[in-house]
Amino acid sequence: MHGNPHRQRELTPAEALRRLGSAPMGRVVFTMHALPTIRPVSHVLSGADVIIRCHRKSAVLSAIDQVVAFEADSIDADTQAGWSVIATGMASLIDDQAQQDGYAELLRPWVGQDQPRFVRIHPEIITGYELVDEDTAAAS
Amino acid sequence: MHGNPHRQRELTPAEALRRLGSAPMGRVVFTMHALPTIRPVSHVLSGADVIIRCHRKSAVLSAIDQVVAFEADSIDADTQAGWSVIATGMASLIDDQAQQDGYAELLRPWVGQDQPRFVRIHPEIITGYELVDEDTAAAS
Repeated sequence: MHGNPHRQRELTPAEALRRLGSAPMGRVVFTMHALPTIRPVSHVLSGADVIIRCHRKSAVLSAIDQVVAFEADSIDADTQAGWSVIATGMASLIDDQAQQDGYAELLRPWVGQDQPRFVRIHPEIITGYELVDEDTAAAS
Repeated sequence: MHGNPHRQRELTPAEALRRLGSAPMGRVVFTMHALPTIRPVSHVLSGADVIIRCHRKSAVLSAIDQVVAFEADSIDADTQAGWSVIATGMASLIDDQAQQDGYAELLRPWVGQDQPRFVRIHPEIITGYELVDEDTAAAS
């Protein structure tokens, strides 16, 4: 059930960004009331920027103009093989109506129909790693 | 592909804790070098405490004696139904050898065989929500 030992391999920023773009959802990590917290969200990439959609009272909006982390991963709970990517950068509110309309097409709301806010995370740092099966790694 | 609208329902702390215990993995959220960050980990519950295992140089160890968040979720990327739970509390290193041995049986290492550190997160706050399908909610 716990699979074989895995070796951790760093991803290049380009590989990390590609995986971030392929993930169906991710998690925004930020500080609220001086405590670390996290919210699962769906996202799209715009270049290297991560765009997320949220409702008017979302906790994520408390992190506007702060540095946040956006994480996506795909880790198999049984084999524990997979990858994790973290993009760290400033969160800003998207004010432009045309941009909002464009992202509204790409990001359908999660909870009900009322998610009129769009947030851009502009990564300054993108890191990621892959957990590679030892046997696969030896064979490759 | 985006499913029906969902309604967000708060979980009681007892429900939230039960789901946290049922999750095959979770994510530790903390501050490192003044930036928010996150690491996927496997965990077990000991009462309401979350126990995780990590390697000697794990970033998670930089959060010892700090308040961290531990999050687990299960969200279907297609239907976007599911739940998310966050337990927030102090992280401490488990020094006791007998406890380490006990948790070593329960938590096999993820990366290779060298994960000799065990960390306890003692939650002061446990919150969670469920995204319920509108139709299911109306029928129940």
